Amino acid sequence: MDIPRLIRKKRDGEALSREEILDFIECYTRGGIPDYQCSALLMAIYFRGLDPRETADLTEAMIRSGQVLDLSEFPQPKVDKHSTGGVGDKTSLIVAPAAAAGGLLVPMISGRGLGHTGGTLDKLESIPGFNARLTLDRFRRVLGACGVALIGQTDELAPADRRLYALRDVTATVESIPLICASILSKKLAEGIDGLALDIKTGSGALMKSFADARELAARMVGIGTACGKRVQELVTDMNQPLGCAVGNALEVIEAIETLKGRGPSDLVEVCRELTARMFLLGDLESRLEAGRARFDSVLGGGKALERFTRVIAEQGGDPRIAEDYSRLPGARYVDSVAACAGGYIAGLEAEALGRASMVLGAGRERVDSVIDPAVGLVFEKKVGDPVEAGERICAVYSNDRARLPRALEMIRGAITISPEPVARLPLILGEAL
Amino acid sequence: MDIPRLIRKKRDGEALSREEILDFIECYTRGGIPDYQCSALLMAIYFRGLDPRETADLTEAMIRSGQVLDLSEFPQPKVDKHSTGGVGDKTSLIVAPAAAAGGLLVPMISGRGLGHTGGTLDKLESIPGFNARLTLDRFRRVLGACGVALIGQTDELAPADRRLYALRDVTATVESIPLICASILSKKLAEGIDGLALDIKTGSGALMKSFADARELAARMVGIGTACGKRVQELVTDMNQPLGCAVGNALEVIEAIETLKGRGPSDLVEVCRELTARMFLLGDLESRLEAGRARFDSVLGGGKALERFTRVIAEQGGDPRIAEDYSRLPGARYVDSVAACAGGYIAGLEAEALGRASMVLGAGRERVDSVIDPAVGLVFEKKVGDPVEAGERICAVYSNDRARLPRALEMIRGAITISPEPVARLPLILGEAL
Repeated sequence: MDIPRLIRKKRDGEALSREEILDFIECYTRGGIPDYQCSALLMAIYFRGLDPRETADLTEAMIRSGQVLDLSEFPQPKVDKHSTGGVGDKTSLIVAPAAAAGGLLVPMISGRGLGHTGGTLDKLESIPGFNARLTLDRFRRVLGACGVALIGQTDELAPADRRLYALRDVTATVESIPLICASILSKKLAEGIDGLALDIKTGSGALMKSFADARELAARMVGIGTACGKRVQELVTDMNQPLGCAVGNALEVIEAIETLKGRGPSDLVEVCRELTARMFLLGDLESRLEAGRARFDSVLGGGKALERFTRVIAEQGGDPRIAEDYSRLPGARYVDSVAACAGGYIAGLEAEALGRASMVLGAGRERVDSVIDPAVGLVFEKKVGDPVEAGERICAVYSNDRARLPRALEMIRGAITISPEPVARLPLILGEAL
Repeated sequence: MDIPRLIRKKRDGEALSREEILDFIECYTRGGIPDYQCSALLMAIYFRGLDPRETADLTEAMIRSGQVLDLSEFPQPKVDKHSTGGVGDKTSLIVAPAAAAGGLLVPMISGRGLGHTGGTLDKLESIPGFNARLTLDRFRRVLGACGVALIGQTDELAPADRRLYALRDVTATVESIPLICASILSKKLAEGIDGLALDIKTGSGALMKSFADARELAARMVGIGTACGKRVQELVTDMNQPLGCAVGNALEVIEAIETLKGRGPSDLVEVCRELTARMFLLGDLESRLEAGRARFDSVLGGGKALERFTRVIAEQGGDPRIAEDYSRLPGARYVDSVAACAGGYIAGLEAEALGRASMVLGAGRERVDSVIDPAVGLVFEKKVGDPVEAGERICAVYSNDRARLPRALEMIRGAITISPEPVARLPLILGEAL
């Protein structure tokens, strides 16, 4: 392969052929192309983009770099959900067991948090004993026992994505819609699923800051998933303020369990209901959205979703008693308050800044190798649009390291705006499948 | 250093600070930054450019990566010449000894050819015994004896450029005006010169295909050279057809010697005269261009320039008798002809295609590690604008490998266009210092 010619071609705005893309990824994965040529190509792609056909070819090449799970032994429809990540986004912990309780098989492979966004795996690992590093054999056994299993990325599935993502992370080439698209879809489609519900977040706390970019990513992913023979539905949802009230790993597990008990905050419940309802449609368990929503409410109301969650925790080595006794989860030593300096209405809870404040407390990773403190984080008592009185608590701050607290408190205060005039609640569901 | 942040900054179109540029090059040169981050930054620079201040800082950082020659022991003004490269461009072999014979010190460090363009070092090394890999001590001794020395890039001077150029070559990031600019100037300014005459080629056989790009590169180089305290003058000259008649290493040495003997082709003589005249002005040996041109004609006419050339050949281990006996240079076994298929006027001798044909014969390098055949190449008997009769020879083709000949002949024929109507000669000097 003449790699400089390939880089030049993309640099000059030409489309790469299917064969060029398949050969490049195959060769890169087996170590035949140095990282310095790959990163130059990634930067050229950042500037020039990939058309839908190229993106589909790249997705396929990345899937082909490893094995694809064959889950045909399971009778249920195989449907997963993916979110592009945000602050306080614990939907996977609710949607996955609810979808399984409603009759789907959910082979969910998730990621860790980086920067201001949290990761599903970090949240799960705040549960004592929980093991997210299962072999594919054990993964199958958990799926058989629970209809759902929750693990991290493995070396067997889409290894090209793992290598490419690590390289993009250190070469400022993460924020490219076609690369994000191929990365997400290659991992998810290697799971052997039939359908995928996508939650594309947009707003200050999301990867896609603008609604237009979020719509473009959503449209791309639906197009490519469909081209790969999968059923894909997307929702674009708000990430201008944290989703739900809790931000931080064990704190979010508690909020997820509360939601599974029917006591979740309304925005979180709504996003989970809309996503799970679409998963039921994708799996042909329901044919109308309203019926999908009702099925979600029914598995929550009957306690079946919570039962699935505790079962999967136990199957993956975790302590299921946390569901009834939150004190078995890691707890923070200190709880401080951020209160309203004036009365009025909450006008903004800037999600990225709040995610960073939570990271400063130790809930997130500044670098890939940072160690996480599962106990710390924030719990909001007010959301955008809520009235607030001067001195009333807006946010509880859970910490273990007093030295980090002043900077976190300053960031939290800077992220909150209060208006003397009434403020409308933020619209939550911004766009959906056509 | 937070390298991903630095890459992101340039990627997003911001200027890098002087400190960031100096730190990056310093750290990269001592191996502290991996190539994959450097190549991503180079590609971001390809797309976003560098402003004049950033380019000057990069040039300075690359100069600082090694030593700068101190030539103060020599009484002459120190002036060099650089060309951006082309087909049949043997001006260095004429200009360097002529400038030295006229009273300048010319510490010339040159490169090798790659692709369709030839390199001064390859031409010199076709002279039996000639050694272009001198230590800096030996380089000084040759300078002392001849007023001129002709060597290749060393590890001591601008080592950052060497590493960066090798990386650019394999990552499709060569064609960036600020990077070209910093690369050329860092090497040249590390020679410890006071002045530099630049020959920026433009046209089909040049790196800068358009006159606008050539002017931009020229203006950048003059600006940065001046910012670094050097006197710089530039000429933009034509590279739509080969310069002179010979293309190929030993063939070009013969043409250079013929030119030093006062029998050179008019276009080659004119470019050499204009460049050398400007070097005399830069070194304050003359104050008017006309006087500079007269000094050039005088050192050629009196045989002094040729004497310098044979002296420097001898000092660098080569056989000076080649100047009187061309049979001591490597000769090709076969000579073929490309003749006019119809009568008329030569309308085009497409330089890049002819350079590639010469490379196919073995005169140039397809890859950095290709081996060159010093004997082979082309000698034109007609140039653009010349009348030609059907069947008359346009080009003699010197070859050693019959297997390569058919493809080369086909390329040469494809590069020649003949018009039935008279055709104007190509303007040679397209722009000059303001």
